[in-house]
Amino acid sequence: MRDRLKKILSSNAWERLIISVILVNSVTLGLETSPAAMQVIGPLLLALDRLILAIFVIELAARLYTFRLAFFRDPWSIFDFAIVAIALIPATGPFQVLRALRVLRILRLISIVPSLRRVIGGLIAALPGMGSIIVLLVMLFYVSAVMATKLYGATFPDWFGNLGASTYSLFQIMTLESWSMGIVRPVMEVHPYAWLFFVPFILLSTYSVLNLFIGVIVSAMQEQSMADTDADLKTLHVDNADLLREMQALRSEIAALRAERASTGM
Amino acid sequence: MRDRLKKILSSNAWERLIISVILVNSVTLGLETSPAAMQVIGPLLLALDRLILAIFVIELAARLYTFRLAFFRDPWSIFDFAIVAIALIPATGPFQVLRALRVLRILRLISIVPSLRRVIGGLIAALPGMGSIIVLLVMLFYVSAVMATKLYGATFPDWFGNLGASTYSLFQIMTLESWSMGIVRPVMEVHPYAWLFFVPFILLSTYSVLNLFIGVIVSAMQEQSMADTDADLKTLHVDNADLLREMQALRSEIAALRAERASTGM
Amino acid sequence: MRDRLKKILSSNAWERLIISVILVNSVTLGLETSPAAMQVIGPLLLALDRLILAIFVIELAARLYTFRLAFFRDPWSIFDFAIVAIALIPATGPFQVLRALRVLRILRLISIVPSLRRVIGGLIAALPGMGSIIVLLVMLFYVSAVMATKLYGATFPDWFGNLGASTYSLFQIMTLESWSMGIVRPVMEVHPYAWLFFVPFILLSTYSVLNLFIGVIVSAMQEQSMADTDADLKTLHVDNADLLREMQALRSEIAALRAERASTGM
Amino acid sequence: MRDRLKKILSSNAWERLIISVILVNSVTLGLETSPAAMQVIGPLLLALDRLILAIFVIELAARLYTFRLAFFRDPWSIFDFAIVAIALIPATGPFQVLRALRVLRILRLISIVPSLRRVIGGLIAALPGMGSIIVLLVMLFYVSAVMATKLYGATFPDWFGNLGASTYSLFQIMTLESWSMGIVRPVMEVHPYAWLFFVPFILLSTYSVLNLFIGVIVSAMQEQSMADTDADLKTLHVDNADLLREMQALRSEIAALRAERASTGM
Repeated sequence: MRDRLKKILSSNAWERLIISVILVNSVTLGLETSPAAMQVIGPLLLALDRLILAIFVIELAARLYTFRLAFFRDPWSIFDFAIVAIALIPATGPFQVLRALRVLRILRLISIVPSLRRVIGGLIAALPGMGSIIVLLVMLFYVSAVMATKLYGATFPDWFGNLGASTYSLFQIMTLESWSMGIVRPVMEVHPYAWLFFVPFILLSTYSVLNLFIGVIVSAMQEQSMADTDADLKTLHVDNADLLREMQALRSEIAALRAERASTGM
Repeated sequence: MRDRLKKILSSNAWERLIISVILVNSVTLGLETSPAAMQVIGPLLLALDRLILAIFVIELAARLYTFRLAFFRDPWSIFDFAIVAIALIPATGPFQVLRALRVLRILRLISIVPSLRRVIGGLIAALPGMGSIIVLLVMLFYVSAVMATKLYGATFPDWFGNLGASTYSLFQIMTLESWSMGIVRPVMEVHPYAWLFFVPFILLSTYSVLNLFIGVIVSAMQEQSMADTDADLKTLHVDNADLLREMQALRSEIAALRAERASTGM
Repeated sequence: MRDRLKKILSSNAWERLIISVILVNSVTLGLETSPAAMQVIGPLLLALDRLILAIFVIELAARLYTFRLAFFRDPWSIFDFAIVAIALIPATGPFQVLRALRVLRILRLISIVPSLRRVIGGLIAALPGMGSIIVLLVMLFYVSAVMATKLYGATFPDWFGNLGASTYSLFQIMTLESWSMGIVRPVMEVHPYAWLFFVPFILLSTYSVLNLFIGVIVSAMQEQSMADTDADLKTLHVDNADLLREMQALRSEIAALRAERASTGM
Repeated sequence: MRDRLKKILSSNAWERLIISVILVNSVTLGLETSPAAMQVIGPLLLALDRLILAIFVIELAARLYTFRLAFFRDPWSIFDFAIVAIALIPATGPFQVLRALRVLRILRLISIVPSLRRVIGGLIAALPGMGSIIVLLVMLFYVSAVMATKLYGATFPDWFGNLGASTYSLFQIMTLESWSMGIVRPVMEVHPYAWLFFVPFILLSTYSVLNLFIGVIVSAMQEQSMADTDADLKTLHVDNADLLREMQALRSEIAALRAERASTGM
């Protein structure tokens, strides 16, 4: 029975069924945000939502039963598991915010459509190559946040009152949003040399983030184009290998000719 | 007669005539926005505009008569057709806004100048390759808009009151315009952990859009440079093929030599 | 005498002299903006400035005398000529603003330092290849400015009152500065569907400008790297040509062997 | 004893020890910004900080003793030296700001972790190739700052009152932060043609900075990918060299055959 279940779970029909269920769920989750729609077909939407959740739970249970522990070896399965688990936690009291996280169910589309899974996989695969820049960026933010808190925390507690507030403000400054008119010009009225801190921070952080983003994009693109030129170079290698083989055959032919000559023509 | 018309329509002189008509129309459409110009030569401008529209209608009719159904197979023809059709709908009552759309006629320049048509064609051709990223971006926006509406719709109805308002606000946040001072800081005064939603959204959306834009640009550029290196590699292949042919000729020469030897030298 | 002058004008010592004069002038022009410096050494600065202008005039006159009409064939010479001419026009009455343009003299550094001249030349050389995108961008701005003036000119005259104001506002929107909070949200309060005009404009214009900027940068870079790989491919061609020559020598050797055999071994 | 010290200082264990000390210091420096943490474990944090500084001083002294003058030939050693020196200057009176600079100690992580050192080294190595663009950017800023001070210094002293203020404002404008709503629109109310100065400045400066950033990123990336394709091309060269050697062997074989034939077959 496990084998039959495995067959069903990896069939195209099953995949298409789950995709349609996710798409229907996307629509119902969108409609739920509209008070007008809720008033007219509210109970229907909630019933549909519960039905779809049930389908997801059953699918997950089937996959857990079929693949056993191998289920947890695939990161995308854990992703599906987490998303369904969020929906099952009773969203009351402190967990009220989880109700909004139910929308993440739409992201199950990523784990089920192979081309989307590949794009996300490619982006995640490119991250380790960017490790050094990520570490440098984290260091830049940490050092700058500590310095900003020490230098401007007392005079501008809303922006730089503690490490968290400073990090958020520095993130805002890095995105260049209102950095001068909103933050640095007011700060400079109290600390006239504040630009000596903020301008280098802007240059270093925007440069690092650009480096990080472009690095990931280019490395993902190169992978593909490298594969292309590698193929080209490989055919050239094969060409050359053909030539070399042909030439060795020729040489042995001549050696044979010479040997024959030596034995007979004398 | 259809053949003679076809000849005229695809002649360079005709192309140049239509381009001049479009350029003249661009100037008149620009002048129409100036009250001073309208007061002095208003009737002339409107008459000219009507004349140019008549030329466009006649040209379209001629192309329809000449190419029959093949006309609708060329997307650029449909583009021309739509632009002229917009100008013919009476711009009264609810269609008043169509009056502004008449300016789109200037875009006919794209469909008639080959180099412009090629640039636009190249950009559109690059879009399907970006399909996965576009789907991910749409999902990111949809999921985020539903979540933002649920989380902040009640407290900030102007920005996140419904799916449409949320999508617009998230688009604004993605462009980094006033995202912090204008939106997230006020939201954080009510929901202190709002940055947990907005900061990841900014990182994911700006990264995806950068990826999309750079992807399209690079793929359009690579197409050209790939063609160049392909040509280079092809000449190398040809070189190698020459070598191989030469070598095979040599081998058969030696085989002949050996055969002759065998038959005579004994 | 013309030949001796030519020698002097193209000598390294002369180049270095003019560079130092420009650098000294940069300092004096900077100091002139400081009231404190003007009070202390004002007359000295102005005298120095007049002396340097005299040197420039003499240098230009010498180059005009030496190169005659060939002078005007070099765009950089015309650039130098224009910059000195600006300084000679009496900056009074309506020409008062020309006084500020005197600072452009520092840009003579570009025309005299070869590496700077090459960078600027490279950027200008890359522009024609971007012709189609520039035309599209100009069309996008013109069409959008006419539409914006027609649609929002009456209700928001400060931003969209005429073609010029609209173009400036659209440029601001393209740079994403306060586009939503500052302009589009207020406009949307009167015209709720204004986002249908502005959001596509933002997408198209930012994409086109990115395309233009990256296109110029990449084409300038490729020029150099293309030269490198071309050299690599050329050595491969040479390798193959060597092989082919060697092989043809071999073949004629064997043909000779066979011919000898035919004439003697029979 | 110097040799033994050298061995210790370049051992992996020592490197790991210093890295852990830096990481511990990062935590203590972060905690020092929190008044709550300072109240509870303030003396401990300060003692720890002093202990870590002592470790750094001892390590530096050991390296100075071991490497003598060679110490100052490595820029990273000077970097370490400067960072420790900052911490030793008594941070009182006018030097109070140095207290905040103590946080820079975390940056010692860069000088000790080889992969981080390589990234920074790569970025610095790419700068000289960008020399011309940096010079152009500096000139653009200097010329624009002088002009802005002359043109708008009298009417807008806060933004363009002197060279420093102008440079800061132009930097803000280059980052596109509030350039129009915050600065240029107010300026244009007094000087209607101010956009003739600011719009070209924005185009030139953003383009130059993009060129600079992308130039450094691409040159750092190319270095690596060039190495890859070079390796590919090298194997092709080797292939061809193999072919050539094989062919020369063949030719001498045939020459030998012919010589033998000449001496015997006659």
